[in-house]
Amino acid sequence: MPLKTGDEYIHSIAALDLEANVLGQRSGGLADHGLIRPSLQAVAVTYDCAHDDATRALFRAHSPLVDAEVNRFTHLHQSADDLVAKVLMQRHCGNRTGCCFQRCVGMDAANAVYSVTYECDQAHGSDYHRRFCEYWAGVQREDLVVDGAMTDPKGDRGKRPSEQADPDLYLRIVERRADGLVVRGAKFHQTGMLNSHEILVMPTLALRPGEEDWAVCFAVPTDAPGVRYVLGRQASDTRKLENNLLDVGNPTFGGQEVLTVFDDVFVPAERVFLDGEVDFSGPLVERFAAYHRQSYGGCKVGVGDVLIGATALIAEMNGVARASHVRDKIVEMIHLNETLFACGVACSARGQPTAAGNYLVDLLLANVCKLNVTRFPYEMARLATDVAGGLLGTLPAARELDDPEVGPYVRKYLAAAEGWAVVDRMKVLRLIENLVAGAGAVAYLIESMHGAGSPMAQRIMIGRQGDLDGKVGLVKRILGIGD
Amino acid sequence: MPLKTGDEYIHSIAALDLEANVLGQRSGGLADHGLIRPSLQAVAVTYDCAHDDATRALFRAHSPLVDAEVNRFTHLHQSADDLVAKVLMQRHCGNRTGCCFQRCVGMDAANAVYSVTYECDQAHGSDYHRRFCEYWAGVQREDLVVDGAMTDPKGDRGKRPSEQADPDLYLRIVERRADGLVVRGAKFHQTGMLNSHEILVMPTLALRPGEEDWAVCFAVPTDAPGVRYVLGRQASDTRKLENNLLDVGNPTFGGQEVLTVFDDVFVPAERVFLDGEVDFSGPLVERFAAYHRQSYGGCKVGVGDVLIGATALIAEMNGVARASHVRDKIVEMIHLNETLFACGVACSARGQPTAAGNYLVDLLLANVCKLNVTRFPYEMARLATDVAGGLLGTLPAARELDDPEVGPYVRKYLAAAEGWAVVDRMKVLRLIENLVAGAGAVAYLIESMHGAGSPMAQRIMIGRQGDLDGKVGLVKRILGIGD
Amino acid sequence: MPLKTGDEYIHSIAALDLEANVLGQRSGGLADHGLIRPSLQAVAVTYDCAHDDATRALFRAHSPLVDAEVNRFTHLHQSADDLVAKVLMQRHCGNRTGCCFQRCVGMDAANAVYSVTYECDQAHGSDYHRRFCEYWAGVQREDLVVDGAMTDPKGDRGKRPSEQADPDLYLRIVERRADGLVVRGAKFHQTGMLNSHEILVMPTLALRPGEEDWAVCFAVPTDAPGVRYVLGRQASDTRKLENNLLDVGNPTFGGQEVLTVFDDVFVPAERVFLDGEVDFSGPLVERFAAYHRQSYGGCKVGVGDVLIGATALIAEMNGVARASHVRDKIVEMIHLNETLFACGVACSARGQPTAAGNYLVDLLLANVCKLNVTRFPYEMARLATDVAGGLLGTLPAARELDDPEVGPYVRKYLAAAEGWAVVDRMKVLRLIENLVAGAGAVAYLIESMHGAGSPMAQRIMIGRQGDLDGKVGLVKRILGIGD
Amino acid sequence: MPLKTGDEYIHSIAALDLEANVLGQRSGGLADHGLIRPSLQAVAVTYDCAHDDATRALFRAHSPLVDAEVNRFTHLHQSADDLVAKVLMQRHCGNRTGCCFQRCVGMDAANAVYSVTYECDQAHGSDYHRRFCEYWAGVQREDLVVDGAMTDPKGDRGKRPSEQADPDLYLRIVERRADGLVVRGAKFHQTGMLNSHEILVMPTLALRPGEEDWAVCFAVPTDAPGVRYVLGRQASDTRKLENNLLDVGNPTFGGQEVLTVFDDVFVPAERVFLDGEVDFSGPLVERFAAYHRQSYGGCKVGVGDVLIGATALIAEMNGVARASHVRDKIVEMIHLNETLFACGVACSARGQPTAAGNYLVDLLLANVCKLNVTRFPYEMARLATDVAGGLLGTLPAARELDDPEVGPYVRKYLAAAEGWAVVDRMKVLRLIENLVAGAGAVAYLIESMHGAGSPMAQRIMIGRQGDLDGKVGLVKRILGIGD
Repeated sequence: MPLKTGDEYIHSIAALDLEANVLGQRSGGLADHGLIRPSLQAVAVTYDCAHDDATRALFRAHSPLVDAEVNRFTHLHQSADDLVAKVLMQRHCGNRTGCCFQRCVGMDAANAVYSVTYECDQAHGSDYHRRFCEYWAGVQREDLVVDGAMTDPKGDRGKRPSEQADPDLYLRIVERRADGLVVRGAKFHQTGMLNSHEILVMPTLALRPGEEDWAVCFAVPTDAPGVRYVLGRQASDTRKLENNLLDVGNPTFGGQEVLTVFDDVFVPAERVFLDGEVDFSGPLVERFAAYHRQSYGGCKVGVGDVLIGATALIAEMNGVARASHVRDKIVEMIHLNETLFACGVACSARGQPTAAGNYLVDLLLANVCKLNVTRFPYEMARLATDVAGGLLGTLPAARELDDPEVGPYVRKYLAAAEGWAVVDRMKVLRLIENLVAGAGAVAYLIESMHGAGSPMAQRIMIGRQGDLDGKVGLVKRILGIGD
Repeated sequence: MPLKTGDEYIHSIAALDLEANVLGQRSGGLADHGLIRPSLQAVAVTYDCAHDDATRALFRAHSPLVDAEVNRFTHLHQSADDLVAKVLMQRHCGNRTGCCFQRCVGMDAANAVYSVTYECDQAHGSDYHRRFCEYWAGVQREDLVVDGAMTDPKGDRGKRPSEQADPDLYLRIVERRADGLVVRGAKFHQTGMLNSHEILVMPTLALRPGEEDWAVCFAVPTDAPGVRYVLGRQASDTRKLENNLLDVGNPTFGGQEVLTVFDDVFVPAERVFLDGEVDFSGPLVERFAAYHRQSYGGCKVGVGDVLIGATALIAEMNGVARASHVRDKIVEMIHLNETLFACGVACSARGQPTAAGNYLVDLLLANVCKLNVTRFPYEMARLATDVAGGLLGTLPAARELDDPEVGPYVRKYLAAAEGWAVVDRMKVLRLIENLVAGAGAVAYLIESMHGAGSPMAQRIMIGRQGDLDGKVGLVKRILGIGD
Repeated sequence: MPLKTGDEYIHSIAALDLEANVLGQRSGGLADHGLIRPSLQAVAVTYDCAHDDATRALFRAHSPLVDAEVNRFTHLHQSADDLVAKVLMQRHCGNRTGCCFQRCVGMDAANAVYSVTYECDQAHGSDYHRRFCEYWAGVQREDLVVDGAMTDPKGDRGKRPSEQADPDLYLRIVERRADGLVVRGAKFHQTGMLNSHEILVMPTLALRPGEEDWAVCFAVPTDAPGVRYVLGRQASDTRKLENNLLDVGNPTFGGQEVLTVFDDVFVPAERVFLDGEVDFSGPLVERFAAYHRQSYGGCKVGVGDVLIGATALIAEMNGVARASHVRDKIVEMIHLNETLFACGVACSARGQPTAAGNYLVDLLLANVCKLNVTRFPYEMARLATDVAGGLLGTLPAARELDDPEVGPYVRKYLAAAEGWAVVDRMKVLRLIENLVAGAGAVAYLIESMHGAGSPMAQRIMIGRQGDLDGKVGLVKRILGIGD
Repeated sequence: MPLKTGDEYIHSIAALDLEANVLGQRSGGLADHGLIRPSLQAVAVTYDCAHDDATRALFRAHSPLVDAEVNRFTHLHQSADDLVAKVLMQRHCGNRTGCCFQRCVGMDAANAVYSVTYECDQAHGSDYHRRFCEYWAGVQREDLVVDGAMTDPKGDRGKRPSEQADPDLYLRIVERRADGLVVRGAKFHQTGMLNSHEILVMPTLALRPGEEDWAVCFAVPTDAPGVRYVLGRQASDTRKLENNLLDVGNPTFGGQEVLTVFDDVFVPAERVFLDGEVDFSGPLVERFAAYHRQSYGGCKVGVGDVLIGATALIAEMNGVARASHVRDKIVEMIHLNETLFACGVACSARGQPTAAGNYLVDLLLANVCKLNVTRFPYEMARLATDVAGGLLGTLPAARELDDPEVGPYVRKYLAAAEGWAVVDRMKVLRLIENLVAGAGAVAYLIESMHGAGSPMAQRIMIGRQGDLDGKVGLVKRILGIGD
């Protein structure tokens, strides 16, 4: 089966005919909905790049699972080079879309589930790995988008799942049948849920004995009965519903965040990949997180490139591109962005094979990568704001341009460096606004903070992986202590 | 004439019956317009506080100009204590509104114009100071809001006013008549223009001989013929037009940014305070900037208090208030916010009298204050985002709560620490979103960067005021160099 | 009795004929000892400035205690203006010496003891305040240097005084006699002990019931029987003993750190100011710390001025003073330094009277001041290192200049921008080295971190003083929560 | 010829019988001189590790040049894996020595000269590459230490070499003979010169036509006639000459900085690798710098591990290891250190072959690596200072321990957490002092700033390599500008 094109992908999603609550209304026809369409267009880029000559090689890989060439977004990494290629591919997608392109989370989930099910089977004699391999072979053959779903609502953060006032605040098994499971709960922050074919659900934390009902991993199609969707709001989201898309900032591409509810959803046994093995919930969370923390060393860097480019362009349009302090701020942005990239590359290049055979990133460096992602995009946004100027917060609506009376004034007074059209200057300002204080900031700033785990999660892992005892040992040797 | 109440103020603005272009449409009834009303409500607080027992003393001052008690927002500072009181008053307003309350700029402009016209008269034998005193006495007596207007469009930043393709890109005198001037141009980033009674226009940079037409300072009422307004867009602005104001974040108060066009506006001679004296344009810009940079050590600190409070409250609601890393982040926010306050207080306490008799802040410390304002609110926003969690970017619309089918799911899964209502948790999340990536971010982040001058302007002043030669002298003395 | 001159002060210390262990040897004649002399010279500046016309007014104050003019370093602050004057005086001393001038700690201790003894007497009917007033009147009249001694060794930081393996690890009363106390223990980090006339000892932490033996405050002369001194080492300290002082960096002034042991020292009753009142140990620590945290907003700023001047001078000598990035780094140094100054001024200007009548700084802002001091001097040192160049770490010894063979090479190759002597360039490099990685770094960096309490101590106070409940209240009011 | 052991290396250096000016005195017997010996011991580790079983594989590589196994410190990198191995090897050496081990610069110089001579020969028909290959084959076979010498004195930084008052301020050819060249000038900051067998000299900047006399690259043995050495001073250097080495901090290993003068030194033609080809001076500087900027992603990380270990150990000894803020600071140190490592790995993993066949690091990422090195070690030093406590600046001399009277007091009052000897606590404090404010700070802080080029040099390269035009192109594509 040949790899899909972007158009084929969009049709395949439209054909699912999903429904969701959007701004308080039950809505269908989502593939054409102004708030959703940009997110499909972003995902479509991940398909089209597998056909473009310039990127085809990077976006394809040979999968031993199906013994065929697959889109790398469905690939199980076979080498450290594959891990590096993943980061390069993600940076390219960020470059093309200027936003979150939403297809990484499934790839990261699959690579984690693949190795963890293998090890679980070894330990418990379960049959999850075979099931998952068959399931994933189908995903590769049909070139699907899979949403990896991890984050539970969590209720009171100070309490365990079973201590919550409502046990559903962590997604759980409410019934075990011969032919499968019934699950109930919700997943928060589901980026790209409504442009996906499948959902791959994982637990949200390392569980303990007695918490077997929450230790569940499984897949269902997005149109499975009992699954409900509520769209999250993004800053300035309704600009996407206005006639003039200039004010959106990014006129073509965008992201999407969905609260997904599982209201007693049935999961056939063949699609269950963990059921009560609490000892493997921790490794699953840790590995998915590590892969996804690596991802941010590619995707956010790609968006960062766009922000840097927009900053350089607005400096040119404002007539200040040659000022030394402006150049210096842009150099600083590049420096920060490339530091993130270096972390993404390094945790990939230092990847190691798992027992199951696919490759896992270096855990320490992947966490270091993500912790930097919780910092540098913020400073880059601040620097972009500095260079762009105050119009970032005070620019009139694009619609004013069409007003016969006011339009000419807007054009007259927004004119800046020679050779640039006012409307293009407005476009660049709106793109920067999109990323630093608009819909794009959801992915570029808020998701950079919390996606793939909040900073404290990375700090805990860094403390655990940093081999502090080994470092103390170095000191004792140099100082002759404890000989 | 007694000081106005907030209600009286709102009626007085409504009575002006101003018109403006709003989202591409010529609109009247602005005092009741959803996009404008919150900004009037914010200004109204500056009036009501002069009547509340708890704040009356702080918000009033005796003005020698009219020999009566005036609202401190119209006061000409008579001492360093007055300068400190100004900062305290601003912090309080920020505390009450959680936004920019827009009345400072006129106060800062007046204090600058007052001393500069005095010195100009001494140097040039002009009559500006008397004119301004009479004008301002009227403002004090009628307790008006005056918008200080400084920022020109500037066109190509690399060129002087006269070198621009269009000379109007810096506001200028196009005709000098016996009875007054005719001016043309525009002012950008006019915070609070549509809730003001008066506009006090100043030049935007230090002018040179040959640039006399741009060296103009004057006042006109906001309803003067030939003045036109175009409202700027803010992130998520149209949420203010939705039925459920919860999603706005700050349901009552807000700011407003206006592109103001002067289309051959006539200014009577009695309202002209500078006309061609290029040598006083620089001092005017510098002093206004210094006062306004001091202001940010009060108002942004006041909003910062609200952001800190919201962060502490959401931590409580999320059940993480006792985690050491959460407490530490909140302490860091307080530390940064109080450092800004310290700068605001210090440049006030070190204030000195001008030749005209009113008090001017310490120029070096006022610039240091503002330069910190271009940094710390960004870090505070980042820390707030960290503590608040990912819902900041993925929370469903408030309207979902009313949906009979989906509302219960939203309530069920957004439940967190015991004792807190879901709707209150949503309110706090939306308030934080408002400040870090919504309409409030225009004032709290973008204006913190560019308001009262971009960071490079502060760096230039710091370099100039930092007495580097004196510091080199200290070293030579200690080392015995050049004896 | 007239205020002492610097020379008179030095003679008065020499007359005490103190002994100390220095580099492993019991040593006398300390006032002429190469390692100690620079610290006396630094203190002497605090005396001479009270006689110089330019600084006389700033360095003197009228003391109601003795109804006479005293050196401000012995003054009990009578107003917020006095608190501001203190900071200005400290900045000036830093400017003159380029190092810690060591006389602040006694002034800060006295102001704390003065108000706390008053309140203790009110609460407990004790007689400490009268005793202290009489004692301090003597200090003022004789214009003495008093070393405030707070920091106990503390042993295992995780344990209370009484839980330590050795109870002496916190200084304590070992015997209570009719005529006084016998104390045992030690004080660490005693800056300027060997150039002081008196020691004013305070407890190191807030004590609890049952810990009465550690709740002791008293004064003894530095030559009291049973007091022993061990000099601490500083980076590059022995360069002060070489023939050519150029390599010291600061050829005239320096600091001194002393481990002071109290080996069963007798304290007459009239010199005891706290004896078992555990409830007043906390306030005493807190107030002394607050005053001393304010001090750093003056003294470190003064040294910072010298570092900035040296950085500007070496840039000039290197021929890079006009490079935009160099200018920008120097502006950044000024900005950071003035932010510290702003904090010092602000906590002073917001000072309030105590029940005893002297003035106390704003506790919150004083802690904010010090927390910034634990950060900014480090960044300033980094920037100075950047501008100064690699010679900072590789410069040959000054003695090479005198070598007939090698001296000419050193002069030839160290020549830089025209008009500057090589020896002067070396002096400036060594001064910067002194402050960023030499003896001066002890005061400018390490003491900036730990003096007046380590950063965590400030964070705890900021958390406590930051009125978080009040801030949460602001949010509830804006959002209408809990109405 | 078998690879040398550390002892054989030390004997081979001692056999050279070099002389140098040390603290103003012409000195021989350097291999046993207290100020020099530690630097030989550090280099010896690079030899011994090639024999230790645990590290043998990492420290050896097969060299096609001599078709034999060589010490990796003399290797010409044959793959990206080789580049990564280099970084791992450097980190290990930093771990073992806790200081700069000084052997990298020759390896980095050789790899740069190898590829540049190849390209120069292609362009100019010169014969440099063959000469260099023969020269370097000898280095590999004899397992020598080569000091790469780049930094000229530079005189007035604002002037070109020929504009200097003294043309020798940039090392230059003063005579061209049939059999070779005569050169004059000096090289600053020569780390590890006096423990090297050979010097490989390169120009210090990109030269222009007319500056042919400065475009020179060559090698001479360290005992060549006319080469003179003057040792640079380091903070606390003379502690190495005291009896008790505890106060040194790092008792065994250290670095060395040497001003090296070339007083009309003759260079035989076979050892000349560039002579007037100004167009290849730029690439040579750029490549050497890139390799050396990569190096810092290994060596400084290795020393950083030691600093982290020492900080963790002193926290344990102080009894505060379990405090959450202490743990958090140590996690932050690990995070910063691993970010540097990630940059070192990434620029290696992205390495590419040169025309000559050896591998070159990614230029952009290598500069990003180094720019981070100019920042993070400073923050790590600050955090270490925070955790270690004030004793870092006030600890008495080790010799006091032996004093019968004072020793017992020192032991009594320096006792801290149970189970740790006072002398060991002092050792750890002195090691931290060594790195943050002592001799080790020369390499860990000052060299981190300026070694391999000052930060501005990296910023220029980042600006040049950052493909800003490409980034602007991304924006134009997304926004449809310029279609």
